[in-house]
Amino acid sequence: MKPAPFDPAALPAGAWRTTRPVRFADCDPAGIVFFPRYFEMLNGVVEEWFSAALGLDYAAFIGPRRTGLGPAHAEADFFRPGRHGDVLAFAVLVPRIGGSSVALEIPVTRGTEPVFVGRLSIVTTSLEAHRAVPLPPDLRAALARYREGCR
Amino acid sequence: MKPAPFDPAALPAGAWRTTRPVRFADCDPAGIVFFPRYFEMLNGVVEEWFSAALGLDYAAFIGPRRTGLGPAHAEADFFRPGRHGDVLAFAVLVPRIGGSSVALEIPVTRGTEPVFVGRLSIVTTSLEAHRAVPLPPDLRAALARYREGCR
Amino acid sequence: MKPAPFDPAALPAGAWRTTRPVRFADCDPAGIVFFPRYFEMLNGVVEEWFSAALGLDYAAFIGPRRTGLGPAHAEADFFRPGRHGDVLAFAVLVPRIGGSSVALEIPVTRGTEPVFVGRLSIVTTSLEAHRAVPLPPDLRAALARYREGCR
Amino acid sequence: MKPAPFDPAALPAGAWRTTRPVRFADCDPAGIVFFPRYFEMLNGVVEEWFSAALGLDYAAFIGPRRTGLGPAHAEADFFRPGRHGDVLAFAVLVPRIGGSSVALEIPVTRGTEPVFVGRLSIVTTSLEAHRAVPLPPDLRAALARYREGCR
Repeated sequence: MKPAPFDPAALPAGAWRTTRPVRFADCDPAGIVFFPRYFEMLNGVVEEWFSAALGLDYAAFIGPRRTGLGPAHAEADFFRPGRHGDVLAFAVLVPRIGGSSVALEIPVTRGTEPVFVGRLSIVTTSLEAHRAVPLPPDLRAALARYREGCR
Repeated sequence: MKPAPFDPAALPAGAWRTTRPVRFADCDPAGIVFFPRYFEMLNGVVEEWFSAALGLDYAAFIGPRRTGLGPAHAEADFFRPGRHGDVLAFAVLVPRIGGSSVALEIPVTRGTEPVFVGRLSIVTTSLEAHRAVPLPPDLRAALARYREGCR
Repeated sequence: MKPAPFDPAALPAGAWRTTRPVRFADCDPAGIVFFPRYFEMLNGVVEEWFSAALGLDYAAFIGPRRTGLGPAHAEADFFRPGRHGDVLAFAVLVPRIGGSSVALEIPVTRGTEPVFVGRLSIVTTSLEAHRAVPLPPDLRAALARYREGCR
Repeated sequence: MKPAPFDPAALPAGAWRTTRPVRFADCDPAGIVFFPRYFEMLNGVVEEWFSAALGLDYAAFIGPRRTGLGPAHAEADFFRPGRHGDVLAFAVLVPRIGGSSVALEIPVTRGTEPVFVGRLSIVTTSLEAHRAVPLPPDLRAALARYREGCR
C-alpha cells in the first residue's frame, strides 16, 4: 500500500534541478527534517524554477500582477528521513497543465537515493477577486515549453 | 476534478475538536495563510489531541520512548483561503489504524465553511534504528477507543 | 557580563499574562526551542495582548488601517533552554511609549524559573508610504492605560 | 535614540560574505520580511560560514560532538524593510571571542543600502550536561584566525 519510491535514474534529463542544504532550522527533536519545512522548501524551489527555468519573475506575480500562485492541493510521500547537513537535489516535472492550474511533481534525492516526492497543484488566482483566473499567457507558454523539454 | 469540500455539518459528533487563531506569522504577502503553516498547525493539533483526547504524552514518545511520529504521507486540499484574524476549528478523524501506522483526517472549518482538509499517515518509528515499529499497545488501544467514539 | 535573569516574583501584578505550550515544531535537533521560534511566539503574544489587554484588533492595523507594527529593534536574553512539552508563561510590560514607537519587554517563565526575556521596539508605519507614523490615538491611549495598570 | 545604520562601504575587506534571496515564505501580510525569519536566516548564514570560512562542520557539533551552538543573546536593528525578491548580502564579523562564547555581528545589505544588523552571542554547551563548556580548541583557533583576517 505504501507508495513505491521513484527511481532517480529515470528522471527526465531535461528537467531543471537545484539543490538545498538541510539546515539546523529545518530539523526537529528527532534529528530529522520536520515535514512542513519540506513544503516550505518546495515553494522556494518553485520560486527559483520560475526565474531559472521559466524565465518569469515569481515575486512580480504576487506583487504588481496581483496573481496568486497558491496550491489547491499539496502532498508528499516521504521515503527516507532527511538529516541536518544533507544536500538535497530537487527536480521539477510538469505532469499536467490545466485551464487555471498546473500540476507539479518534485522528486527529491540525496545522492542516488529518493528522499521524498512532493506534488503541488498550483492555481492562478486574482488576489483582488479571490477567484481562480486562467493561466496568464506568458506562464502558460513557458510551462508548455518547459514540459516539452522534459520529454 | 477538484475535490469537493467536506460538509462541516456531517462531521461525527464524537470527534475531538480544537481551534487555532490565524496569526500574522502564518500569513504571506498575498494576505492569506502560507500553506506550509497549515501543515505545522496540523502537527500541533495532533500533539494537543494526543494529550486531550488520547490521554497520551506526545513529547514522551519523541523523548524518553524514542518513538518517532512522523508522516509517510501528508496532503491537504485547500478550499478557501484562511486570513489573518480567522479562528479555525480542527476536528480529528481516524479513518484507518494499521500495523505500524495510523491515518488521520483533519477537516478544518471557519464558522460553517470548510477551509481545508489535511490527511496524515503517521508511522511509528524507532528513533534508534530508524525503522518502522508496530504501534505501541497504549497508542493502539487509545486510537481504537477514540475511533469507536467517532462513529 | 551575562545579563542577570529577571525575578519572576517581582513582575507587576497588573501585567497581562498568557501561556504557550512548546510544540515539536518549535524544537531543534538539540531537543530545545530553536531561538527564532521564540521571536515568532513573541509576535503572537503581542497579537493576543492587543485584543485581550488593549481591546484593539491587531489584524485590522495591518489590514484595513494599513499600519505596520514591525520592530525597529528586537532582542532576547536566553537563560534556560525551553523543551518540548513545556508550558511557558509570558507577561507583557511597556517600559516606554514614544512618538511613533513603543518598547515592550516580555519576560517568560516556566513555573518559577525565568526562561528568557524578549524586548521589542515596535514602530507604527504607514504601509503605503513605508515611513514611521505617530502612534494612532486609540493605540496610544490603550498603551498609556495599560502601562498605568502595571505600576 | 535610533541606532545609526552601519556603513556598508566600511565593512572589512576580509570578512566572509554570502547572499540569500528573500523568498515568499519569508514575507508577511505587510509584504515585507517577517522579522523572526531574519533570525532564521542568520542561523543559516552562521552554519554556512562554519564550513565555508572556518572549515568546520556545524552539523557535527550538534550531532556526534554533542556541542550546542545556541545563543545566550540575540538581537537585531532593522533599518529598511526587506522585500520579496530582494537579494540580501550578509557579512560575518567576530567582535569578541570569550571563554565559552563568541560574539558575532552580521551586517546585512541590499546593494549599497544597510537593511539590518544582527548580533548573536553564541555559547558552546554540552548537550548532555546542558551547561556551558569552553570553546573547543578547533573552533577557538578557527575563530581567532578568521578574526585576524578581518582586521
